[in-house]
Amino acid sequence: MSMVNETENIGSWLTDDQIEFIRDRLPILYIDAIPIRTDDLGNVTQIGLLLRGMPDGSISRAMVSGRVLYGERVRSALIRHLEKDLGPTALPQISPSPTPFTIVEYFPDPSISGFHDPRQHAVSLAFVVVVKGDCKPSQNALDLIWLSPEEAQSEKVSSEMTGGQSKLLKLALAHMGVIN
Amino acid sequence: MSMVNETENIGSWLTDDQIEFIRDRLPILYIDAIPIRTDDLGNVTQIGLLLRGMPDGSISRAMVSGRVLYGERVRSALIRHLEKDLGPTALPQISPSPTPFTIVEYFPDPSISGFHDPRQHAVSLAFVVVVKGDCKPSQNALDLIWLSPEEAQSEKVSSEMTGGQSKLLKLALAHMGVIN
Amino acid sequence: MSMVNETENIGSWLTDDQIEFIRDRLPILYIDAIPIRTDDLGNVTQIGLLLRGMPDGSISRAMVSGRVLYGERVRSALIRHLEKDLGPTALPQISPSPTPFTIVEYFPDPSISGFHDPRQHAVSLAFVVVVKGDCKPSQNALDLIWLSPEEAQSEKVSSEMTGGQSKLLKLALAHMGVIN
Amino acid sequence: MSMVNETENIGSWLTDDQIEFIRDRLPILYIDAIPIRTDDLGNVTQIGLLLRGMPDGSISRAMVSGRVLYGERVRSALIRHLEKDLGPTALPQISPSPTPFTIVEYFPDPSISGFHDPRQHAVSLAFVVVVKGDCKPSQNALDLIWLSPEEAQSEKVSSEMTGGQSKLLKLALAHMGVIN
Repeated sequence: MSMVNETENIGSWLTDDQIEFIRDRLPILYIDAIPIRTDDLGNVTQIGLLLRGMPDGSISRAMVSGRVLYGERVRSALIRHLEKDLGPTALPQISPSPTPFTIVEYFPDPSISGFHDPRQHAVSLAFVVVVKGDCKPSQNALDLIWLSPEEAQSEKVSSEMTGGQSKLLKLALAHMGVIN
Repeated sequence: MSMVNETENIGSWLTDDQIEFIRDRLPILYIDAIPIRTDDLGNVTQIGLLLRGMPDGSISRAMVSGRVLYGERVRSALIRHLEKDLGPTALPQISPSPTPFTIVEYFPDPSISGFHDPRQHAVSLAFVVVVKGDCKPSQNALDLIWLSPEEAQSEKVSSEMTGGQSKLLKLALAHMGVIN
Repeated sequence: MSMVNETENIGSWLTDDQIEFIRDRLPILYIDAIPIRTDDLGNVTQIGLLLRGMPDGSISRAMVSGRVLYGERVRSALIRHLEKDLGPTALPQISPSPTPFTIVEYFPDPSISGFHDPRQHAVSLAFVVVVKGDCKPSQNALDLIWLSPEEAQSEKVSSEMTGGQSKLLKLALAHMGVIN
Repeated sequence: MSMVNETENIGSWLTDDQIEFIRDRLPILYIDAIPIRTDDLGNVTQIGLLLRGMPDGSISRAMVSGRVLYGERVRSALIRHLEKDLGPTALPQISPSPTPFTIVEYFPDPSISGFHDPRQHAVSLAFVVVVKGDCKPSQNALDLIWLSPEEAQSEKVSSEMTGGQSKLLKLALAHMGVIN
């Protein structure tokens, strides 16, 4: 659900030992963002999926994801992670409502919720975010593909995702009313 | 909740007698839309309020509102009514989720739900819609003002609205997390 | 999405000719309800599916569904249709929030939205409703089965539903976070 | 938003120094719960408000609130805090949907979001929870009162709440469609 070496990028005042210590003691707050493109009526036409290194060491299709920092608004964390993964010209359109469409509970034990993060217990606020600008995979993302809603819920695409990301993708598609 | 002579504008295949007949027998499906402007983080900065003739004959601050037509998608009805009231260059950004933030039940008897339409029982799907373009009041709207979230929930503004519109406005503000 | 001869049951002041006339001219307001049972933590454990005659003449697994009447609150319509289909001792627990988890647009042309009703354009407010009491299929429902979330999204069950009901069921499961 | 000495009650494996350390470095995950009673149609009839010591040292009307622990499901945290504050026979009915009706961002600086916690940056998932059983204030809660929706949004009640709790209460009332 996040960049392998995120702690180095964005939590520079937390040493590896410190984040280690906290991760063993408290749930960590995350955001997940599913970037999409829409037509003039607001219908989703494309869903953006990154390719990147995952917490479990695999290379996987994945959402935009990352921690909320101390003192940071959830909206700001969303923008920061979207721009980190999609580049500075993605033009994400954050919704005026602060409510996530779902919450995701990641556990080191994959059997608890179906969402898995071997490093930590994380609770993520999940948002669908329309992007209007040019996107290019940046930093740790190896690739970015745009899929139709049909393609995004195909078994082929699901099989390329780990840690429950394919389930999260389906929750997002259902939120938009486009599940098969 | 709608234009006084809407039946002439958009339901041309329904005569006045026919719409009269139906209004006495079935709830009529409406949409309500609260046009807003946001900053780069998605925070609402301004709420647009029309001034227009209301079903009860008063002139009142009001939302964008109107019927869903036979065969029409809810998304299309939203766009149509927003463009009818705000002009063709308003550039409304319809959300990818089809779910309204609330539903509003208007009755001829104002005591039932607090939402009042003397003409009919109407059930309205209510949406907050970000507009990105130039807006000007058109057709039956006499005026359009833009208010801050603070101003929009002031007693002065509430007193200029009838039929439960001030309550709907507060529900929209709460949905965006900005109620006082 | 509704009983074949619903007009006789609940719209007694509308003759067949009258409902015919209206159905050709306006979208009709419906509710869909997915009855569920939950454990002590609120996790869905079982989903109730009816077996009944459908608008297209087929016998199909289906949700609780029906029209909102003139003058009727949406909450009352929910209770009425749940009791009509599940019996008077079902004890439905209607949510304090009036907002449906999704809206469903049924059209005579099945290609428009993926939801199909050959008789009419209907817009349905869809709710998940916990039932606490004893349920038995009543009136036009031929049978009632309770399925686990896993079973409810199996291909076998999906193949027993028509008109988009399997899609609506998946939207409800996703709303509860239990889609595969 | 939480009991003054909560760390002693529920985070026994975190020393005061440890929780201090973490609170200066990461947002802490909370839940807020607004207990309500409903009528047979699901309309809210009463809202439960506690009286208790607040993080800022005041005695204030407040919601049920508290931390999510390491390894704990959000649903379990909800039940735990509701039973802690309302007693073991409150019979809270947790919703089948995992999505909060809003999120609340508490900051040591009250000007950032309007929600204030002098001890920490906390992000809270806020839920309305129907309770069916007997409630009595327990542990650190000094009192529990039940208010009508009208009373709950009165200026008198608002003036008895600190830290943004009156705003959260209004967001909950709006979510249920009963704001004035």
